[in-house]
Amino acid sequence: MSAKDRIDPDRLLDFAAAVFVAAGMSEVDARLCADTLVQADLWGHQSHGVMRLSWYAARLKAGVCDPKAQPDLVIDAGGLALIDGHDGMGQVIAARAAQEAVRRAEVHGIAAVGVRNSNHFGTALYFTLMAARAGCVGFLSTNASPAMAPWGGRRKIIGTNPWSWAFPAGARPPMVLDIANTGVARGKIYLAKQKGQRIPEGWAINAAGAPTTDPAEAIDGIILPMAQHKGYAIALMMDMLSGVLTGSGFGADVAGPYQSEWRSRAGHMMIALNIEAMEPLTEFNARVETLIAQIKSVPLAQGFEEIFYPGEIEARNDARNRMEGLSLPADTQIDLRKVASEYGLHNLLPF
Amino acid sequence: MSAKDRIDPDRLLDFAAAVFVAAGMSEVDARLCADTLVQADLWGHQSHGVMRLSWYAARLKAGVCDPKAQPDLVIDAGGLALIDGHDGMGQVIAARAAQEAVRRAEVHGIAAVGVRNSNHFGTALYFTLMAARAGCVGFLSTNASPAMAPWGGRRKIIGTNPWSWAFPAGARPPMVLDIANTGVARGKIYLAKQKGQRIPEGWAINAAGAPTTDPAEAIDGIILPMAQHKGYAIALMMDMLSGVLTGSGFGADVAGPYQSEWRSRAGHMMIALNIEAMEPLTEFNARVETLIAQIKSVPLAQGFEEIFYPGEIEARNDARNRMEGLSLPADTQIDLRKVASEYGLHNLLPF
Repeated sequence: MSAKDRIDPDRLLDFAAAVFVAAGMSEVDARLCADTLVQADLWGHQSHGVMRLSWYAARLKAGVCDPKAQPDLVIDAGGLALIDGHDGMGQVIAARAAQEAVRRAEVHGIAAVGVRNSNHFGTALYFTLMAARAGCVGFLSTNASPAMAPWGGRRKIIGTNPWSWAFPAGARPPMVLDIANTGVARGKIYLAKQKGQRIPEGWAINAAGAPTTDPAEAIDGIILPMAQHKGYAIALMMDMLSGVLTGSGFGADVAGPYQSEWRSRAGHMMIALNIEAMEPLTEFNARVETLIAQIKSVPLAQGFEEIFYPGEIEARNDARNRMEGLSLPADTQIDLRKVASEYGLHNLLPF
Repeated sequence: MSAKDRIDPDRLLDFAAAVFVAAGMSEVDARLCADTLVQADLWGHQSHGVMRLSWYAARLKAGVCDPKAQPDLVIDAGGLALIDGHDGMGQVIAARAAQEAVRRAEVHGIAAVGVRNSNHFGTALYFTLMAARAGCVGFLSTNASPAMAPWGGRRKIIGTNPWSWAFPAGARPPMVLDIANTGVARGKIYLAKQKGQRIPEGWAINAAGAPTTDPAEAIDGIILPMAQHKGYAIALMMDMLSGVLTGSGFGADVAGPYQSEWRSRAGHMMIALNIEAMEPLTEFNARVETLIAQIKSVPLAQGFEEIFYPGEIEARNDARNRMEGLSLPADTQIDLRKVASEYGLHNLLPF
């Protein structure tokens, strides 16, 4: 792809926001949701980028996700709160949870904000980074629609249930983890399908329980957990935090962003810890920078050119993509044209 | 091993406690430390059981771990606290952190207790279970001596850095996760060495960077993270929480329980969340029981006879071992005889 084919992320953001507004959302909420998608593309996480715009739009159109829902506080108890999302967009609700958690952590040192009746919120790191940028440690978990079987079983009842930790890192971009508990994020299988590629062995078994490299078979089959039984156990913990504890859907009772037939009932758990309550931020920053320097000075293993700390690659992709513009797969561009047609927004398409 | 060779766990506890008292600890602290070791054996985690008694005793004798250290609160700020362990036994300090976190969570909904200048605390689940039994969600992380290279590197600077989540589970034994971020816990490699067994491929590379099945080579080499780069990233997050944030040792500056030359400088992070602050415990319990029933009713995959939830196998082992008595590997029994000789405690040996 030549430089002239690169897409301006700001124009892509304007387009995606216009779609969300056309789907019934307020301007502010629409821009937030659009930003989460474009930001995922900027980080290099295309599987969670604007390729998902049509899925969100379909759920809003179907009425299973409410574009105008106002999340409200069901429990407001100092360092602990519970938000009912009333089936609104997960991004709007998760951002509210992150803001609440940071504000409460500044007062109480640490705060937990549970979320019930939400939806898929995109990438978890978008929200834990909000905490890190505010001088907090951020943790966020969510449950998700069934993607895995419990270890030893052959029926999907457990989601990928992603979780994220983020920390400020002094003068460097924040240190941030954002992982699903499957061996591979389900979005990557959708992306492979969209790109017409096979998937590696070990990612999934098909519905009959046999290994497969066909992304379509994998989507109909069962994705394997990361690190075998460990990934199963971690996914379950994230459901306990996000679904069971918050009074939201859990286990097999959570619907995903890939269908538009059912309300999601996804739940989340956001925790923020105010670093200044533990030690001066300058001291913390110096210690993180020392650790990162230690990591990056380790001699390289064969086949590697650089050692990264978690979040560093995303920050580097972001800087490059903001400068050079984004490149989107042809199928994603076709999808976006369809969305543009549906809402009469062809004039805003950035390509 | 016949039933008559089974070891009475209560007598094993008395023996281990007597060793800790002989090494200079108070009766109360000694019984706690002994209980953490015997309990690990009862759960079936022999790699973290009384086979480690001689290592702890050696560190106490060498003076790098202080048998009489009194952990004190450096920060006491409601929902957040920081304990300086003053190089005492990690078990004593972690138990104090768990008690503090539970007490504070009962008041504030959620509480975090950081720990600096501690030592190896044995199994993390021992302490998160204290929270679960008190009606809380418990989280505990620790850093540990270098065991892994950062992803793409070939020098050990990152520990296995175990972490645990525990939840009450109604009428069932608690649901509990306790994992190291290596593909395998380092203790299992020591156990294989003690038993004279090879280790599977994929657990470790040797010092030259080549795959190995020799536990001795693996101990001198580099253990691989679980789930490849994901395990590296998670381990780093646990060091950020446990070491960087608490002002303790971090990265390559943490010493392990296998040597007795250096103070450990391990740090921990304990978080407790009071479930009653989020929803009535009876309601939470009913929801957990529903999830567990859902899990256990999934049809079995080939080669499995039952689906377990995390913590269930440990609870089952505990019940059986308490009834039938423990069986310990011959090498562990030889080790314990040596310890008994050293402290003149042969009369208390339970075998």
